[in-house]
Amino acid sequence: MATQAKLIEPDSFSAQLRRGELVLTDCPCREVLKDVTSPWGVLLLIVLMGDVRRFSELRRMIGGVSEKMLSQTLKRLEGHGLVHRKSYETVPPHVEYSLTPLGRTVGEKIEALADCIDTIFPDILAAKHSG
Amino acid sequence: MATQAKLIEPDSFSAQLRRGELVLTDCPCREVLKDVTSPWGVLLLIVLMGDVRRFSELRRMIGGVSEKMLSQTLKRLEGHGLVHRKSYETVPPHVEYSLTPLGRTVGEKIEALADCIDTIFPDILAAKHSG
Repeated sequence: MATQAKLIEPDSFSAQLRRGELVLTDCPCREVLKDVTSPWGVLLLIVLMGDVRRFSELRRMIGGVSEKMLSQTLKRLEGHGLVHRKSYETVPPHVEYSLTPLGRTVGEKIEALADCIDTIFPDILAAKHSG
Repeated sequence: MATQAKLIEPDSFSAQLRRGELVLTDCPCREVLKDVTSPWGVLLLIVLMGDVRRFSELRRMIGGVSEKMLSQTLKRLEGHGLVHRKSYETVPPHVEYSLTPLGRTVGEKIEALADCIDTIFPDILAAKHSG
C-alpha cells in the first residue's frame, strides 16, 4: 500500500525528474516538450503570441526557416492542439495560423524563458570571457 | 531621429520577435536559447536543479542519452556559464556537475515550462481526440 501511495503521489514533472524517478522514455509529455522546445517551435510560439499570421508572414518573421521545416513544425503543434489553422475558401486560398488557449499557456512560458536568456545574456558573455 | 529612437527602444526579446523586428539569425542569444532548449539540454537542466550530479548519475537519471550526446550537451552549457564542472584529483578521477547561479535562473524557467506541459497534458490529449 505504501509503495502504491508513493507511485500515485501527485507530483510535478520536474520534481520527479529531479529525483530521477521518471522513466522519461515512457513519458507521453516528452514528445510535446520536445516539439515546443524544437528550434523552430520556440520561435513560432513566440511569433504567434503576437498575432494571427499567414504562412508567408511566419516564414519572414522567423527568418532562416525552410518552407518544409515550418510546415512540419506547424503540423506538430497543431497535432498537440496548440496551434489553430484556419483556411478561408478564397482564390487564391488564404490560410491563417493562431495559438489556441492551450498554445498561449505554453507560449507564455516560452516567452518567459527567452526573455530570461535575453536578460542574463550580458552575464553569460562576461562568464565566457572570464572563464 | 525617430527611426533611431525606435531602434534603440529597450524591449524584450519576445516583444521584438512578436513584431518580427528581430533578425534572429544575427541574435547572439539564439545560440544559448537553442542549447538550453535542445532535447537533452532541457532534461539536464531539470535534473541539475535537484542536486550536484556525477556523469554516470546524469546518464541514468535522464535515460536514453548516449555518453557522447550528454558530454556535448554538458560542454555547451558549461561554455555558456550555466553548468559548473568540478574535478577532484582522486584515483579514479571524480567529476561533479552543478548549475551556476545563471544556470539556476534558466533552469527555473525550463521547469516552469515542463510543469506547465505536464499540467495541461490531459487537455492536450482531449484536444487530440476531439480533433
